[in-house]
Amino acid sequence: MNFSSDNSYGVADEIMAAVVAANRGAAVSYGGDDWSMRVSARFADLFEHEVEVFLVPTGTAANALSVATLTPAHGAVLCHAEGHIHLEECGACEFYALGARLVPVEGFAGRMTVPGLKAALARYPGIRHDLVPSALSLTQSTECGTVYPIDEIAALAGLAHENGLGVHMDGARFANAAAALGCAPADITWRAGIDILSFGATKNGAIAAEAVIVFDRTRGRDLFHRRKRGGLLVSKTRFLAAQLEAYLVDDLWLRLASRANAMAARLAAGLASLPAVRLPWPVEANEVFPVLPRALAVKLRESGAVFHDWTATGLAGTGHAPSPDECLVRLVTSFRTEAGDIDAFIAAARGLAERT
Amino acid sequence: MNFSSDNSYGVADEIMAAVVAANRGAAVSYGGDDWSMRVSARFADLFEHEVEVFLVPTGTAANALSVATLTPAHGAVLCHAEGHIHLEECGACEFYALGARLVPVEGFAGRMTVPGLKAALARYPGIRHDLVPSALSLTQSTECGTVYPIDEIAALAGLAHENGLGVHMDGARFANAAAALGCAPADITWRAGIDILSFGATKNGAIAAEAVIVFDRTRGRDLFHRRKRGGLLVSKTRFLAAQLEAYLVDDLWLRLASRANAMAARLAAGLASLPAVRLPWPVEANEVFPVLPRALAVKLRESGAVFHDWTATGLAGTGHAPSPDECLVRLVTSFRTEAGDIDAFIAAARGLAERT
Amino acid sequence: MNFSSDNSYGVADEIMAAVVAANRGAAVSYGGDDWSMRVSARFADLFEHEVEVFLVPTGTAANALSVATLTPAHGAVLCHAEGHIHLEECGACEFYALGARLVPVEGFAGRMTVPGLKAALARYPGIRHDLVPSALSLTQSTECGTVYPIDEIAALAGLAHENGLGVHMDGARFANAAAALGCAPADITWRAGIDILSFGATKNGAIAAEAVIVFDRTRGRDLFHRRKRGGLLVSKTRFLAAQLEAYLVDDLWLRLASRANAMAARLAAGLASLPAVRLPWPVEANEVFPVLPRALAVKLRESGAVFHDWTATGLAGTGHAPSPDECLVRLVTSFRTEAGDIDAFIAAARGLAERT
Amino acid sequence: MNFSSDNSYGVADEIMAAVVAANRGAAVSYGGDDWSMRVSARFADLFEHEVEVFLVPTGTAANALSVATLTPAHGAVLCHAEGHIHLEECGACEFYALGARLVPVEGFAGRMTVPGLKAALARYPGIRHDLVPSALSLTQSTECGTVYPIDEIAALAGLAHENGLGVHMDGARFANAAAALGCAPADITWRAGIDILSFGATKNGAIAAEAVIVFDRTRGRDLFHRRKRGGLLVSKTRFLAAQLEAYLVDDLWLRLASRANAMAARLAAGLASLPAVRLPWPVEANEVFPVLPRALAVKLRESGAVFHDWTATGLAGTGHAPSPDECLVRLVTSFRTEAGDIDAFIAAARGLAERT
Repeated sequence: MNFSSDNSYGVADEIMAAVVAANRGAAVSYGGDDWSMRVSARFADLFEHEVEVFLVPTGTAANALSVATLTPAHGAVLCHAEGHIHLEECGACEFYALGARLVPVEGFAGRMTVPGLKAALARYPGIRHDLVPSALSLTQSTECGTVYPIDEIAALAGLAHENGLGVHMDGARFANAAAALGCAPADITWRAGIDILSFGATKNGAIAAEAVIVFDRTRGRDLFHRRKRGGLLVSKTRFLAAQLEAYLVDDLWLRLASRANAMAARLAAGLASLPAVRLPWPVEANEVFPVLPRALAVKLRESGAVFHDWTATGLAGTGHAPSPDECLVRLVTSFRTEAGDIDAFIAAARGLAERT
Repeated sequence: MNFSSDNSYGVADEIMAAVVAANRGAAVSYGGDDWSMRVSARFADLFEHEVEVFLVPTGTAANALSVATLTPAHGAVLCHAEGHIHLEECGACEFYALGARLVPVEGFAGRMTVPGLKAALARYPGIRHDLVPSALSLTQSTECGTVYPIDEIAALAGLAHENGLGVHMDGARFANAAAALGCAPADITWRAGIDILSFGATKNGAIAAEAVIVFDRTRGRDLFHRRKRGGLLVSKTRFLAAQLEAYLVDDLWLRLASRANAMAARLAAGLASLPAVRLPWPVEANEVFPVLPRALAVKLRESGAVFHDWTATGLAGTGHAPSPDECLVRLVTSFRTEAGDIDAFIAAARGLAERT
Repeated sequence: MNFSSDNSYGVADEIMAAVVAANRGAAVSYGGDDWSMRVSARFADLFEHEVEVFLVPTGTAANALSVATLTPAHGAVLCHAEGHIHLEECGACEFYALGARLVPVEGFAGRMTVPGLKAALARYPGIRHDLVPSALSLTQSTECGTVYPIDEIAALAGLAHENGLGVHMDGARFANAAAALGCAPADITWRAGIDILSFGATKNGAIAAEAVIVFDRTRGRDLFHRRKRGGLLVSKTRFLAAQLEAYLVDDLWLRLASRANAMAARLAAGLASLPAVRLPWPVEANEVFPVLPRALAVKLRESGAVFHDWTATGLAGTGHAPSPDECLVRLVTSFRTEAGDIDAFIAAARGLAERT
Repeated sequence: MNFSSDNSYGVADEIMAAVVAANRGAAVSYGGDDWSMRVSARFADLFEHEVEVFLVPTGTAANALSVATLTPAHGAVLCHAEGHIHLEECGACEFYALGARLVPVEGFAGRMTVPGLKAALARYPGIRHDLVPSALSLTQSTECGTVYPIDEIAALAGLAHENGLGVHMDGARFANAAAALGCAPADITWRAGIDILSFGATKNGAIAAEAVIVFDRTRGRDLFHRRKRGGLLVSKTRFLAAQLEAYLVDDLWLRLASRANAMAARLAAGLASLPAVRLPWPVEANEVFPVLPRALAVKLRESGAVFHDWTATGLAGTGHAPSPDECLVRLVTSFRTEAGDIDAFIAAARGLAERT
C-alpha cells in the first residue's frame, strides 16, 4: 500500500531492457549517438511537428531550462501558486533564469484561469521600472491531479501570447494527461499554443529521463549551451535516449499512464464511498487528494499504508479546507500499482473509519 | 581502434547488472533509499574519513557544485589553464558559483606548480576592490594524462590553505590516478589537503554516476540545496547509488582503471618505437597525446582509427610544440580497450609511417 | 501643487552647500576621505552602537545590497506584498541576492503582522528540497504612509530571529518614521532587532545619498566587495559623505522630515473634511492615499495638481477598495512643501467636489 | 605633488555651478527631467549619430552594463589583460553579465593587437560545449596611458564584428584620447565600429557622472531594466544630467582633458631627462608610468609626492621589466594639476637621484 510517489516504483521492464540492450560496442557521446537521433525523430512524429529535443536526467532540470529560455533575467514568470516549479524545486527556475521572478497565480485545483491570469498580468502595467512578464508556465496534468482541457490551455496560451509571453508546459505527468484526454499530443501542446514542453518519463517508468521539446525555435534558444552549463549534458547519451525510445515504442508511455490513471480512479471511487472522507478536487490523472480525519490517517499508516501529508493552502477559502481534526493527504498511483493494493487500502480505511 | 573518449565504450557488466538488480519493489526516492545509505558508508570506508556524499549524473555537475561551495560570487578560483572546468564545461563553474571567476594558472603537462600558483596568488595582493582568491581546483589524473604525486598535491594544497583558499580535486579520472600511484585514496585527497572531491565513475564504466565527496564540512556547505536547485537531484536515487556501489565492490573501480592504464602504457610504448612520433608528456594514466605528422593522422583515420585532435596551446614555448606539418592528438584507452586493438593501431601506424 | 514624489523637490540648501564646500583640494577617493570617516562616526553616535557604514547613491542599491548579504541564493526573503523591493525595484534584490526569492507577506496598510509572518514561515516547513527562509525586510515608514510602532518591529524581528532569519529595514523614509515616533533611532533599529538598515537621505533632501548601516557584523558580510561589484562604489566619496554629514548635523534630517510630516497631516485633515473623499490608511508620515471619485481626480489634475494613481491591490477585501467610479491616488509631501500649496489643493478639491 | 588618481582633485567649477543651478523648483525624476532630455540631444550632436543615453554614477557601472548587454551568460568577453574591467572592478562585468567570462588578451602598453585578438578567438573554434565569444572591450585611452589610433580601433572592431562579437569601448578617459587625437568623437567610436561606449566624466572633473552611449540599438538592449535592476537609476536625475550638460557645453570636456594631457607630457619630458628613470610605454594621455629605483620612489614619497605603485605584469618579457631594485609607479595628472607641481616633482627627483 505504497502511495507515496510516482518515483517509488522503479522502472518499467521494457525500459530497463532497452538500457541493457544499448550496452553494446562503442557509440558517440554527448548526443551524437544513434539512439538520440532516433528519439528526436520519434518526438517529431509523435507531435506531428518539427521539434528540437534536449534530453536531461531530471524534471526540475527540464522545467528550469525551459523557463530560462523564455525569460530575461528581469522577467516575471507566471505560474500556478501550487506549481511544482514554485513550491518544490528549490528555486531552480530562478537559478537557471539568472534571477527572474516566479509570480504565483491563483486558481482552483491546480488549474490557472483566464481571469486569474488577466489579474496577474494587470499588476504589470508596463512601467519601465518594473519586471517584464515574459513567460507562462502551466502543468499538465496538474499538481492537484487534474487535467486542463484543450480549450483552457488554448485560452491561457492565447492570452499569454497576446501579452508577449512565451508558454511552457511542465509535463512531468504529461502521459497521464494525454491518456486521460485521449487526444493527440499535439492538441494539448503546440496546437494549443505551447512553445516549449518538459516531457517527463521518469515518474511513469523510466530510470531518469526527461525531454525538453521545443516547438517554437524562435523562443527556445541557447538550450544546448544552457544544458551544458548546468552540468545537465550526460556523456553516454545513448542510455538516456534508449529509455525514451522504449518509452515511445508501441505507445508504452500511454499504456503505463492509463494503468496509473485507472488505479487512481479506482482509489477515488473507493474513497468516495467512505462517509468520513471527501475529495476536494476531481480525480483526473494519477493523484488522489482526500481530506481525512487525522485519526484515520494515523491508523492507516500504522496499518502499513505509505503516503504524504499535503499542504492545504490551495483549499483556503474554498469551503473545502480541512478542519482542525482533518488533514489533506496525497495518494499517488503508478504504472505498477496493483488493484489489490487499492482494494486493501479502501477496506482498511473503511474498517478503521468505522472504529474511529 | 576507437580511442576517441572514455565515454564511448559503454558500461561495465557488473555495474549494469547492479542497476537491473535494483529494480525491485518500492524504494524511497531523493536519496533516502538503502543503496544511497550503503554507498555513503562505503565511501567513508574507502577514504578512511567521515564524508558527506552527494551523487550527481555528470562530472561537470560534480565539479561545478564543488567549486561553487568553496567560493563567494566575488571570488577567484585558480585552476590549470588546460583544466576541464576552464576549457570544456561551458562556464558551469561560473554559473554555479554565481559569477565567480576562473583564473588559469600555467604549468606543464596539466600539472600546476608551486611557483606557478604563487605567481597567480601574487596578482591578488588583497586590495579590497578586487576579487578574493577563494579556491584551488586540481585535476587528478590530469587532462594531459599525467598524475600528481602525493607530495605535489600536498604542497599545492598547503599553499592554498595558507592563503585561505579551499581545495577541490576534479577526479573525473580519479581511479586512473589511484591505480597508477597504488596509494590509499586518502593519501591523494584529505591527507594531502583536498577539501572536496569530484569522484568520477562514468568515464570508467558507469552509466552516469559521479559523487561529490566532502571531507571538510566547514567548507562544503549547502550542497543539498545547490544540487536540487541545479536540477541535479535525480528522483530514483537507487539506480544512481547502485552504479557506485557496484563500482566500489571488490575494487572494481581499480581493476577497470588498471586495465585502461595498462592499455595506455602499451600504446605509449608502441608509439615511442615510431621515429616520426613523439610524446611530449609522460603517459601516466589512460590518455596518450602523441605529436604526429599530419599526413599520418589522416591516414590512420582513413584506416579506421578514431581519435580527436587536441589543442597544443599547452606546448607553446616548451620545445615540444607541433611543427606546421604536425599535429597533437589524443588517444584514450578505457576499461574495455583490447590489447589487439592497440597492437593493430601501432602496426598500422608503423606501416603508414614507413610509406609516408 | 506638486505631490508626485519626494524626489521632485530638489535638494536642501544645507546639503548643497556642504557639497560645494567639499570641493577643495585633493582628497583620497573610494571611501578613504575625511568626510567618510566623520560620517561613519556620526552614524555610530546617532545609533548609539558600533556600525559599519556603506554609502551608495540609490535606495534600491541600499536595499538590494542589504538583503543580499542576509540570504544565500537558495533563500527566501519575506517582505510586505506592497514593499518597494517587491513592487518597484525591477528585481534588484533578486539580482544582488543572486537569484533568491522574494516572498510577499500580506498585511494591512503596509505593515506586516505577526500572524501574517507566522503563516508565511509555516509554508517553509524545513523540507530540504525547498528554499530556506533567510531574511525579513520591513519598510519604515511604510509604502502606505504608516509607521511601525517600536513593539511591532520588535515582535516581527523577534519572530524572524527565532526562525533564523536576518532582519533588514528599508528606511528610504526612515527620517519620517523617526520624526513621527519621536524616539531614539536605536529604538526602532538594533534595539528592536534590526540587523541592517537602508538609511535614506535622497527623498528627504539629499542629491543622491543613502547609507547601508550594519548593526550585526556577523550577518552583514562582504558588503565592501558586493558594493564594488555592483558598480556602486563612487570614486569621489567625499561628495557623497558630505551630503550625509550635512544631513545629520544639527538634526537637519529630523527637521526636514518633520516639515514633510506636518504637511501631510495638514493635507489629511483637509481631505478628511471632504465628504466624497476617504482615507483608507492612517496618515502617519509624509504620504497620503485618498480614495477619490475619478472625476474629481481628473479635474484636480486639470487645475494643476500633480500626483500619481496608486495600485489598490492592498485594499482588496478590506472594505476600503475603490468602487469602479473611484480611484486610489498618492499624494507625497516633502521638506519643501508649502502650507499654501496644501490649502490651495484642498480648496480646489472642495470646490470641484461640490460642482461634481 | 599629488599624482595618485584622477579622482583626487575634486570637481571642475563649471560643473559644480551647474549642479547648484539645477536646484530650482520641482522636476520629474528618473530621467524624465529637462536636463536629461537636453543631455541626450547634446550627445547625439557630439557623436553625429542617433544614440541612446543611460546616465549612471560610476564608470564600473557603465562598463558592466555595457558589456552585459552584449553577451549572453554563456559568452566570453575579450578584453586586455590589464583592462580595468579585468583587474579593478571586482568582477562587475561577470556580475552584470550573469556569469559570462572575461578572457584576457595580451598586448603591449594597454593596446590589444589584431594578431593577439585573432589568437584569442582561435581558442574558441565553435565547439558547442564551449563558451561563445560575444563581446570585445577596448579601453580608450588605455590603462597604460596610451591611445589607440583610429585605424587600430577599426581593425580590431572589424575583426570582432566578422566573428559575431559586439564591441564596447571603456571611455573612462575618453576625453583624454579625443583631446590627444584631435579627431571627431565619431571617428574613434561608431565610425570605427564601436557599438556601445562608456563615456566618462568623473575622472575629468564631474562629481559622479558617466554615460552609456548606445550606437547600435540592436545590440545594446534592455539597458533601462538592467540599470534599474542594478540600483543604478538615481532618482533626482537632473543633478546627474546637469553635470554632463556642463561638461559638454563649450567643449569643457576637451579643455579639461587637454590640460591634463599637457601636464602629463611635461612630466614625461622631465622624467626622460633623468638618467635613472625610464618610461616603458609612450605617454599619450594623462598617465605616466616610470620605472624608478626603489630608493628614489621612497625618497620622493618622503618629500611629499603622492603616487601609487603599479603592477609590472604587463612588462614581463618585454625587456622593460623592473629589476629587483626598481619599481613601476603610476603618476596621474588631472584637469587641475599645476605646472609648478610638475616642475617641483622633477626637481625633487633630480636632486634625490643625484644623491642616491
